[in-house]
Amino acid sequence: RIQLRDILENSTTRMSKIIYWVIHCLIITALVSFTVHTLPELSPTAKQILYLVDLACLCLFSVEYLLRLFAAENRFRFVCSFFGIVDLLAILPYFLTLGLFDMRVLRLLRLLQLFKVARYNKVFKRYYRACLLLRVDLAFFLAVALITVYLAAVGIYHFENLAQPDKFGSIFQSLWWSVVTLTTVGYGDVFPITTGGKVFTFVLLIIGLGLVSVPAGLVASALGEAREIEKVEEKGKPEYGETHEQ
Amino acid sequence: RIQLRDILENSTTRMSKIIYWVIHCLIITALVSFTVHTLPELSPTAKQILYLVDLACLCLFSVEYLLRLFAAENRFRFVCSFFGIVDLLAILPYFLTLGLFDMRVLRLLRLLQLFKVARYNKVFKRYYRACLLLRVDLAFFLAVALITVYLAAVGIYHFENLAQPDKFGSIFQSLWWSVVTLTTVGYGDVFPITTGGKVFTFVLLIIGLGLVSVPAGLVASALGEAREIEKVEEKGKPEYGETHEQ
Amino acid sequence: RIQLRDILENSTTRMSKIIYWVIHCLIITALVSFTVHTLPELSPTAKQILYLVDLACLCLFSVEYLLRLFAAENRFRFVCSFFGIVDLLAILPYFLTLGLFDMRVLRLLRLLQLFKVARYNKVFKRYYRACLLLRVDLAFFLAVALITVYLAAVGIYHFENLAQPDKFGSIFQSLWWSVVTLTTVGYGDVFPITTGGKVFTFVLLIIGLGLVSVPAGLVASALGEAREIEKVEEKGKPEYGETHEQ
Amino acid sequence: RIQLRDILENSTTRMSKIIYWVIHCLIITALVSFTVHTLPELSPTAKQILYLVDLACLCLFSVEYLLRLFAAENRFRFVCSFFGIVDLLAILPYFLTLGLFDMRVLRLLRLLQLFKVARYNKVFKRYYRACLLLRVDLAFFLAVALITVYLAAVGIYHFENLAQPDKFGSIFQSLWWSVVTLTTVGYGDVFPITTGGKVFTFVLLIIGLGLVSVPAGLVASALGEAREIEKVEEKGKPEYGETHEQ
Repeated sequence: RIQLRDILENSTTRMSKIIYWVIHCLIITALVSFTVHTLPELSPTAKQILYLVDLACLCLFSVEYLLRLFAAENRFRFVCSFFGIVDLLAILPYFLTLGLFDMRVLRLLRLLQLFKVARYNKVFKRYYRACLLLRVDLAFFLAVALITVYLAAVGIYHFENLAQPDKFGSIFQSLWWSVVTLTTVGYGDVFPITTGGKVFTFVLLIIGLGLVSVPAGLVASALGEAREIEKVEEKGKPEYGETHEQ
Repeated sequence: RIQLRDILENSTTRMSKIIYWVIHCLIITALVSFTVHTLPELSPTAKQILYLVDLACLCLFSVEYLLRLFAAENRFRFVCSFFGIVDLLAILPYFLTLGLFDMRVLRLLRLLQLFKVARYNKVFKRYYRACLLLRVDLAFFLAVALITVYLAAVGIYHFENLAQPDKFGSIFQSLWWSVVTLTTVGYGDVFPITTGGKVFTFVLLIIGLGLVSVPAGLVASALGEAREIEKVEEKGKPEYGETHEQ
Repeated sequence: RIQLRDILENSTTRMSKIIYWVIHCLIITALVSFTVHTLPELSPTAKQILYLVDLACLCLFSVEYLLRLFAAENRFRFVCSFFGIVDLLAILPYFLTLGLFDMRVLRLLRLLQLFKVARYNKVFKRYYRACLLLRVDLAFFLAVALITVYLAAVGIYHFENLAQPDKFGSIFQSLWWSVVTLTTVGYGDVFPITTGGKVFTFVLLIIGLGLVSVPAGLVASALGEAREIEKVEEKGKPEYGETHEQ
Repeated sequence: RIQLRDILENSTTRMSKIIYWVIHCLIITALVSFTVHTLPELSPTAKQILYLVDLACLCLFSVEYLLRLFAAENRFRFVCSFFGIVDLLAILPYFLTLGLFDMRVLRLLRLLQLFKVARYNKVFKRYYRACLLLRVDLAFFLAVALITVYLAAVGIYHFENLAQPDKFGSIFQSLWWSVVTLTTVGYGDVFPITTGGKVFTFVLLIIGLGLVSVPAGLVASALGEAREIEKVEEKGKPEYGETHEQ
């Protein structure tokens, strides 16, 4: 069992590397199968092949989950961990609804398998740490962004409601314009046509430009901090390692 | 009265936390009520409900304002403070125009209630400080941005005026194109069609790209400075606290 | 004459502040007059008023130039300085073509007056210094950006030429698409419709996204350096001032 | 031979500077010739001139390649180096297909000549170093970006498939919308029209905005690190130079 844990969790031995790659290939396969599945003109044969590929992935994921559960040091903690739940959600709905009708919901659940990729990635921790450092700032910025988007929607509603009642009929519809404009996507399906609305958009964009650039700075400095914390920890680790080896 | 001040301003006791949440819920309610109000197809019943919700919010805001006024250490300073004015503006117009006709103006005034959210937020101070640090830079950048937008409008007017007299009829109309292009929104309602105009836009965008990225750097470094000042102040505060407790 | 120089160049005395504001108002007036001038439906009276306003601005700018020339310590250096040339270009064409026909060219020359605003601004120096620090980097980035834009144009020409011969008829036309896409403006007048072109754009945007963010980082760090150099210089200055006063 | 190497590789002597400029002009000439070549309405004379210009460039590049090969200290290493391969690829296909039919493939190969410009540029090294420092981060970010784009495509497919089956017919088609939206290009050829799709896009853009700003921060800090390493190396170099001169 300890050997199995070694194979599944440490990615240093040869065996575990093979398993690591096999699992990733399976995830990609399941993903491609799901994506191809949505093509409108598919022959019944292709559909059947996709169904079989899907089933194979499901079986192998189930085996993987059971092996991990068996090998886990603390089984309860594994089941409750983030990836334990993700792994379970990726397979459980199949068994619960097997032979039944609803397949739509499963599709979205299966997408969580994608996050498995992140599991093996060390950098994930740094980003997670940066997010923790930025927690308050990001929440504040989100609030400011949402308020700006809302106020922009109210403003444009005022200016464009009478001129374009079909496109700026309510603040809800104006919110769509507001977010598409402030994120500089600008599809071109809704845009102001009155002089007042254009002047309002002009002022809004000049100010909004600065607003959009704030998170870039926040993330940059937080990642810098997170990297420094990482370095300090890495400095500490080898020392511990030396003590361990002695 | 001191107790009341404690409840309303310090957010450490249980009572004040409840009040804090109640006020926030009220603001959100007033906001939602206002937003729903603009929907074009509303039944008279719905309108009446919204009117009552609105009235309830107004009453509670009035009570809150009077309580805050009563509890304030320096009443004159409270009335003149930013949030004192905002709170008053959120309720006063109702009483001044009650039973009268004009309701349009009030709507925009009521939006100021949104900024109440920021009041309780500590991060607000850091951003305020960062803005103070950047005051001169932001003003300069704003000037550069406006001049660039204007020059771009003059340039495109020159190139596109003859080819698209309805879209680039004057520099005022060209300014609309200019701001939509330089902020990379690009609705697609106006764009150059002449070769000269396209070459001009080409050069403008290659240069403008760099211009847009300037405030990002400014804000990032200013926030970093503001955070350092904060740290220094936080270091100073506990010492003061210790002295206070002795 | 020294007194006149003091008034025109130091902005500490009261008189010079008034002159400073008058000149700025004149620039804005000349600017607004020029902008209004382009409106298609103007009455002859309005046109005449604008002409007179224009003439007044011209006269006052001429007086200012002559006064500056008279007051300058080194007249030749003043004439050859950047703002000396700008000031001259803003007025000279009027006198050269007075009573003659061509007015179109003048318009663009007059826009240079806008840069006069920057003259009084101290921050300008910091940006100039940051640009000097970034000289090589910005040139390199510009080269990379241009090469990317060009390669993107060649790529899309390959994919879309046959499908949309009117929009992607040559690499020159593709360059327009290329710059509009890579700067994320996306007017929507030209976009790929073939699968190959869409996949190409997909890959290009994922990579191009990173490219666009490079100058932001460059400018941010250069401005930081420029500010530090400024601080060091400011520290040095007062000491020198003290020595000077002794 | 050593003299030839000096001329071709060190850009300090006069002769090598001339050669440096001649080669760059040739690259630009070949580039312009290729670009003009794609114009749809070209007279046969123009085509012939372009063909001759092309041939001349090819000959001179071949001569350059042979001279470099002759002058190289280690010929095998030169052939296997990045620019050795690029130089060969720029000329070899001509000789292999001379007088034959297929010219399309060559065109794209010839574009690699553009990267020759980077060869002489010192800054290239700094960016290369910054990329090395960011290797892991950029790979991680690329993965996150791709997963986000994919999940966005799946989400919008769910919401818009029934309403716009021609534009969101499969996840493959949705991916096009996804990348165009998340990079804020927003052509306007595909956009959500259902309320669910709009709300989904709203949430996606608010979050995606932050995602797009991450690489800016990464590149900025990595360039800063690369510059510091450069400074340390430059400090080391002169000392070595002194020792060398003694």
